[in-house]
Amino acid sequence: LNLIVLGTGSATPSLSRNPSAQILSANNDLFLIDCGEGTQIQILKNKIKLSKLKNIFISHLHGDHYFGLIGLISSLNLAQRTEPLTIFGPKGLEQIIQLQLKYSQTWLHFKLDFQEVNTEKNIVIYENEFITVSSIPLTHRIPCCGFLFAEKPKLRNIIAELMPKEITNSELVFLKKGQNILDREGEIKYNYLQLTKEASAPKKYAYCSDTAYNESIVEIIANADLLYHEATFREDLLERAKTTFHSTSAQAAKIAKLANIKKLLIGHFSSRYNDLDEILIEAKEVFQNSEIAIENQTYEI
Amino acid sequence: LNLIVLGTGSATPSLSRNPSAQILSANNDLFLIDCGEGTQIQILKNKIKLSKLKNIFISHLHGDHYFGLIGLISSLNLAQRTEPLTIFGPKGLEQIIQLQLKYSQTWLHFKLDFQEVNTEKNIVIYENEFITVSSIPLTHRIPCCGFLFAEKPKLRNIIAELMPKEITNSELVFLKKGQNILDREGEIKYNYLQLTKEASAPKKYAYCSDTAYNESIVEIIANADLLYHEATFREDLLERAKTTFHSTSAQAAKIAKLANIKKLLIGHFSSRYNDLDEILIEAKEVFQNSEIAIENQTYEI
Repeated sequence: LNLIVLGTGSATPSLSRNPSAQILSANNDLFLIDCGEGTQIQILKNKIKLSKLKNIFISHLHGDHYFGLIGLISSLNLAQRTEPLTIFGPKGLEQIIQLQLKYSQTWLHFKLDFQEVNTEKNIVIYENEFITVSSIPLTHRIPCCGFLFAEKPKLRNIIAELMPKEITNSELVFLKKGQNILDREGEIKYNYLQLTKEASAPKKYAYCSDTAYNESIVEIIANADLLYHEATFREDLLERAKTTFHSTSAQAAKIAKLANIKKLLIGHFSSRYNDLDEILIEAKEVFQNSEIAIENQTYEI
Repeated sequence: LNLIVLGTGSATPSLSRNPSAQILSANNDLFLIDCGEGTQIQILKNKIKLSKLKNIFISHLHGDHYFGLIGLISSLNLAQRTEPLTIFGPKGLEQIIQLQLKYSQTWLHFKLDFQEVNTEKNIVIYENEFITVSSIPLTHRIPCCGFLFAEKPKLRNIIAELMPKEITNSELVFLKKGQNILDREGEIKYNYLQLTKEASAPKKYAYCSDTAYNESIVEIIANADLLYHEATFREDLLERAKTTFHSTSAQAAKIAKLANIKKLLIGHFSSRYNDLDEILIEAKEVFQNSEIAIENQTYEI
């Protein structure tokens, strides 16, 4: 899993930060997570090819998380896309997009599929051969959920130097799946434990923006390799965080700690903060392995 | 009248050109004309203060002319705007904006007034003390109109050195309006022709994007001081211009010539053109006083 952060700002676009958007790449597939205004330009700047983008996940219908979506869809159409595209998002998103397509008299060359997400439930909303995506109910002023991207268990790795030459491809697949190959007498011919070794552990990435502090997500995101959590404010604006259903940096770090996260990325910063040093210090005091999410940077998970 | 061009691209945002948007300033008022995605950022870059913005004019509902509008409205609201804002645009725009405000549960602190423009008629759609704005019916794939900004005749200028000291303020106003002041016997006491001189001619600015070539606009925009006309293609793509209801550079220039325009600005360039030299040469061959519209440049009218 590789994550490119495209936007770390909140509320309104600024000259220094873009609104929320991220690209997660997983096994040759791209997933777009949120799509604030200007995300198209960020995608161009990062030279991201959208032919591998098949699924978009929108957390909620505040503009800084989706105002760039209609423009992206229009541009994909102008670029003669024919591959289907699926958009996961809360109720209302399909109506908003379709209304704009209607008035611009745009007939898409590709199938646009909307999957309405129930933001109040933690359920698997997408899966393919390699990954599952599930919703993380968040606590915000309007319906909002995060997304947990979890790799499926991987096939075991072959130990090439030990592998008998006469072994067939189908036998190899059994070994990689952790099954022994038996001979006609039912005796073990090839032992998967001897000929393969365990694959790396499946990775988990959790995206949580926007949300008030709520420990109910801890169980869902537990042990994730990377957590992106909003940290709109510093702790001195805790009251403002509460009334606007956002989190402070310390709160984001507390969630990371409780959930035993490996690494925390904080973002969605209020435009009042030019310098992010203090907001990072605040997080690190609670959870040492915290980092500021940096736009146009790639994070290996 | 002063014009700042914020976007000269067409169809889809690119790294080199922004989608359509312009700011016209007239007597301390700002008018925003079209508002493609990213216009907010262009406004920030140009340090334009939006407190004087009271009216927005949207030509049509193709995304490169209005996808930035909902974000701009949201940002004005986050900036605690309380001044009313009026948006002139075609049928559908109000529904699109209101739907997005509804789902984001945004309650505006300011009055947002929509004035639906009949894009098929040339009528005055706005006026204040200094200026009238009228619609220019354009020929496009969907309902679309341009806008003609025409200054009202100005008051005559006082010749200060000739002005009698005893003249009253109300008498001055009469003279500036071109009326003589009479004495009790009905004789001319102060002659406006002697004490004032003619004001500069009222200026006209015509904005025409997007449109197929159509000479029916010539009469409406006749003698304008500045015409911004789309020139999406060069003449070798005339057929493509026709099928997409756009104009070539030569066609834009021909309109300028027929309408006896003082100066032509061309824009809305197809993203296929990196170098605009040829497109300008093509215009100049038909109408000498043609210029490429340059983003972030101010044009005095």
